Amino acid sequence: MGKHLDSGELLDLLLHAPDDLLQEKLEYVHPADILQLIHDEEADPRELLSRLSEEQIADIIDEEEEEDKYELLKLFPSIRQEQIVDEMSSDELADLIGSIENEGEAKALLDKMSQENREDVGQLLSYDPDTAGGIMATEFITIYDNKTVQSTLKYLREIADEVENAYSLYVTDRQDHLRGTLDLKDIVTSSLETPIMEVMNPHVLSVPVEMDQEEVIALFDKYSAVELPVVNGDNQIVGIITVDDAMDVMREEATEDIHYMGGVAGEEKVDGSLGESLKSRLPWLLVNLLTAFLASSVVGLFQETIGKVVLLATIMPIVTGMGGNAGTQSMTLIVRGIALGELDRDNALRVFAKECGVGVFTGLVIGVIVAVASALVGGNPVLGLVTGCAMLLNMAVATATGYVVPVVLKKLHVDPALASAVFVTTATDVMGFFFFLGLATLFLPLLL
Amino acid sequence: MGKHLDSGELLDLLLHAPDDLLQEKLEYVHPADILQLIHDEEADPRELLSRLSEEQIADIIDEEEEEDKYELLKLFPSIRQEQIVDEMSSDELADLIGSIENEGEAKALLDKMSQENREDVGQLLSYDPDTAGGIMATEFITIYDNKTVQSTLKYLREIADEVENAYSLYVTDRQDHLRGTLDLKDIVTSSLETPIMEVMNPHVLSVPVEMDQEEVIALFDKYSAVELPVVNGDNQIVGIITVDDAMDVMREEATEDIHYMGGVAGEEKVDGSLGESLKSRLPWLLVNLLTAFLASSVVGLFQETIGKVVLLATIMPIVTGMGGNAGTQSMTLIVRGIALGELDRDNALRVFAKECGVGVFTGLVIGVIVAVASALVGGNPVLGLVTGCAMLLNMAVATATGYVVPVVLKKLHVDPALASAVFVTTATDVMGFFFFLGLATLFLPLLL
Repeated sequence: MGKHLDSGELLDLLLHAPDDLLQEKLEYVHPADILQLIHDEEADPRELLSRLSEEQIADIIDEEEEEDKYELLKLFPSIRQEQIVDEMSSDELADLIGSIENEGEAKALLDKMSQENREDVGQLLSYDPDTAGGIMATEFITIYDNKTVQSTLKYLREIADEVENAYSLYVTDRQDHLRGTLDLKDIVTSSLETPIMEVMNPHVLSVPVEMDQEEVIALFDKYSAVELPVVNGDNQIVGIITVDDAMDVMREEATEDIHYMGGVAGEEKVDGSLGESLKSRLPWLLVNLLTAFLASSVVGLFQETIGKVVLLATIMPIVTGMGGNAGTQSMTLIVRGIALGELDRDNALRVFAKECGVGVFTGLVIGVIVAVASALVGGNPVLGLVTGCAMLLNMAVATATGYVVPVVLKKLHVDPALASAVFVTTATDVMGFFFFLGLATLFLPLLL
Repeated sequence: MGKHLDSGELLDLLLHAPDDLLQEKLEYVHPADILQLIHDEEADPRELLSRLSEEQIADIIDEEEEEDKYELLKLFPSIRQEQIVDEMSSDELADLIGSIENEGEAKALLDKMSQENREDVGQLLSYDPDTAGGIMATEFITIYDNKTVQSTLKYLREIADEVENAYSLYVTDRQDHLRGTLDLKDIVTSSLETPIMEVMNPHVLSVPVEMDQEEVIALFDKYSAVELPVVNGDNQIVGIITVDDAMDVMREEATEDIHYMGGVAGEEKVDGSLGESLKSRLPWLLVNLLTAFLASSVVGLFQETIGKVVLLATIMPIVTGMGGNAGTQSMTLIVRGIALGELDRDNALRVFAKECGVGVFTGLVIGVIVAVASALVGGNPVLGLVTGCAMLLNMAVATATGYVVPVVLKKLHVDPALASAVFVTTATDVMGFFFFLGLATLFLPLLL
């Protein structure tokens, strides 16, 4: 009887406890906690892991981030590696193989696997990693459709080890066609002689192996599912996706969108190398540089006007900057709304009208403030009028652009998070300079 | 035997199927699918729901977004409302009550509840909505610690209805102190005479009722948990949090961060009203306006220089804009890294050094391009040198600021996603103008 072990207790247990106590206690220790100790570098990982079984080490590798799994495995001599690999599930092995950059090492690891695992891994690696097939596990329990509750219970006790991580059982015919699902709770609440066909749910929600992972997440979300079966074109079950994998994908997708909107690669890591960061960011900066040249060339068109009224150069960054802010606000809302499926045919027109309304209204408020300020600084009411009108125009265009750009990108099958920001800020810069300096040129005689 | 119903089949079923067929089929229809039909407005919701039981309607309301739950309930006459409310769980009722803006209506709904539900709801509403207590459910199954597998199985069959949504059973002593957890799989794989104490997991990972919801999500993530028990200060179980609630919170937190970084309120909805949008965005725009005035005043300091070399006005937005982009890149990576717990004491210094390195290196690349371009346009190599140096300086400062701002905000217990962008872009604007126009003023004689 005891509470969850804290990290000090766990460290002590792993390093100093007698073998029998260690194994008894470890039954209730989550591998993520041992992995945490390794990450915290409280002790040499070799020493921490030395007394664990191959199965326990496999579970810990299972918890590790994909790019560091192989580092953990490499702590052990080749024979032990083979034993650990034997304990790993085929989808974990596929991840592990996929994470090894050196082809020779990947090949060597494949050779350490059993024939069956090697085939499974080959099959899994053939799926696109962003699809159901790429994230599914291939360990699941099937029950033939002619069983009863009693014979199923007997079977489950026989394969108790495998049941460990199972939430649902899958009922199939002899050709592996998925006929229904069976929850453990259906079994424990039914009398022993009941046929499985009567307690199973025959209306199975399953996922085709090629479904995009974002769609899979949406299904988990919509149905509050804990586990979904993956089927091939013949409705044969080929894998399962569990909710913890779905959560991982959800977090990855959110990170990717946030990164894209900030102009960094989806997979860039906070503690990555300088080289990785440059590879992630320089391309974006170069694209942005092109758009900056474009905006700057608009200013160049009006150089003569600026030469006559230098104060314009002081005011113009306000007009473009505020337009950029308003456009980014709209774009952020729309990009996230598209990702969450909240923007659809039914509300599209209403949302567009609302965004335009926001642009006009905020443009009026900010426009008046900026107009008054610049009229006072320049000592000229016409300058105020020019600034205010340019501000209003640019903010109205900004929110409309913030709506249109991600919607059009989505239609073109480009991820809206990826490219919207560049287009929106280019538009607000170009338009902002054009409205402001254009109006100033038009009213130039009144500004001198 | 059949596959998941499509929406056309479901619509037909709800509107036209005979009663007995309807109820038989509905056993396997997910309430989210019926809710989808209502959202798609294929038919009058009153008609769609008319033949469903109170329990089925309660399940559908359960699936609805918080702000629209009450709209659904209001479709029904007062007496039916009372029956539906009777079928809802206390945490759902708390959400429902919390979503009603009109105090009189909330009071009237409370009066429709049973005494027990009213007390539970009152208790739940007393927890901060962003804590474990605010997101937990209060329906869970407890087993006393003196039972056996057989008596537990018998008990589960008696309360089969309640078991429907249970994944774990909670073993307590007579005073409700949490002693262990029991998975259904532990029961189905143990012989009938085994004492519960022997099959339960005594090392329970539990969550204090006041824990922040972000920490709760991190635990779900770390331990791949499907359900976590919530305990009070006396280790008495008061609720459970399930992984689907955790996924909802995870999505909400990601949306909040994305919105904050784009300068809109966390809770703004894509299809919200104009008024809500203005309330969400105008404050941000006003804050940004202040910083725009600040940046503009730096330009004002150098008006004389611009008056002499007007080309400077054309080039200066490139220097500030590219600095802004580089700063936003660093900030995005750091803000997300902090949210995911990937930035810690151990790697902080290394990450900071890397960000500075990125700033210097990208500053060199972009600086050289911009220098050559402006030297050519201006026909003056000194102008190129001034532009290039300002660009390099600003980008180096930008990435350093992109690191420092969110880290400092985090230390001050301000959400880094909320305020980082304003500080970073203000810094890159102010510094960009200052470096570029300052250097130009210094070398003015060579630029004329």
